[in-house]
Amino acid sequence: MNEQETLRSQLSFILECDKMKNVLRQTMLADYSRRENDAEHSWHLALCAMVLQPYCTFPVNMERVLAMAAVHDLVEVYAGDTFAYDVKGYEDKAEREENAARRLFGLLPQEQAEAFYALWREFEDCETDDARFTNAVDRFQPFLNNTATAGHTWRLHDVMRSQVMKRSALSMEVMPVLRPFIEEQVDSAVKKGWLLPG
Amino acid sequence: MNEQETLRSQLSFILECDKMKNVLRQTMLADYSRRENDAEHSWHLALCAMVLQPYCTFPVNMERVLAMAAVHDLVEVYAGDTFAYDVKGYEDKAEREENAARRLFGLLPQEQAEAFYALWREFEDCETDDARFTNAVDRFQPFLNNTATAGHTWRLHDVMRSQVMKRSALSMEVMPVLRPFIEEQVDSAVKKGWLLPG
Repeated sequence: MNEQETLRSQLSFILECDKMKNVLRQTMLADYSRRENDAEHSWHLALCAMVLQPYCTFPVNMERVLAMAAVHDLVEVYAGDTFAYDVKGYEDKAEREENAARRLFGLLPQEQAEAFYALWREFEDCETDDARFTNAVDRFQPFLNNTATAGHTWRLHDVMRSQVMKRSALSMEVMPVLRPFIEEQVDSAVKKGWLLPG
Repeated sequence: MNEQETLRSQLSFILECDKMKNVLRQTMLADYSRRENDAEHSWHLALCAMVLQPYCTFPVNMERVLAMAAVHDLVEVYAGDTFAYDVKGYEDKAEREENAARRLFGLLPQEQAEAFYALWREFEDCETDDARFTNAVDRFQPFLNNTATAGHTWRLHDVMRSQVMKRSALSMEVMPVLRPFIEEQVDSAVKKGWLLPG
């Protein structure tokens, strides 16, 4: 491919990713008006990461964190969103997303395709410091929006206190400052009936 | 303020910024289904910057570019979106946005407020290399979506070819590889009646 052909394939990728704006998540907007989509969530995640980074207990590379935020949900353009507490959906999530990643990133020139794939894979594996911090914030952003919308997704799916605490464990480990807020919100949610006890 | 109080003010900021998801732009989604909002645009801008960075004729710091993408439109939470070709709207844009920036970033602890304000100001001033690249991509993303939606915003506002070429000049200067694509699309848009000649 010559340079103009390479550019055209990259522009196709950028336009294909526009579909992220139509992948709906379970989370509601903070004003409770409608469900959030993947593009909005990815931006909000980046913003949260910038605001909360000083609380991370280990150093992170913010260029990599912000890039990871931008690409971490891209595979959902083909694989759809899997709700955090959907046990059945998680059974084939890895396979669906792996296929989606190869198809979507395959629109890019090889070197860039490999870089985007690696960044997405790193987020999923959640082993490096950058991935652990990004995942910690990725779990906290919907928690925060959920507290602002009367526990919408918890009520909708009969979620239990222990499930939320387990899912929030990484956020509290990576940013211990969040623990009092998360525990207070969870206690309050149980009292209000937004979360099942147990 | 103690650490927990500081955290609460930061969480207020994060939730206030959720309003970006309801600030509508003139640009349509690529599938022509509805208007794009600021949160979606900010994410798409970050993604475009990652894909197009190799074409930038000067070195940029991608941590700063991606951070700028996340914050560059935040002031519109209070100031609203000003359409690129809206002459009247531009008359008081600077003042409206300056007030909005002070109000919004003022929710953050002082050091962070200053950092966010400086990043937004740098984008607006468009003088540093990082800001010039981010602005170049910020003008190209709606151009690309517009070519995918039959020139929707151009038709809606009777935009002229010369206005689009002027607005795209920075994108073509910073990423010369884009020139053939932009010129071809603009020529085609004039032929199809999506853009006024002249």
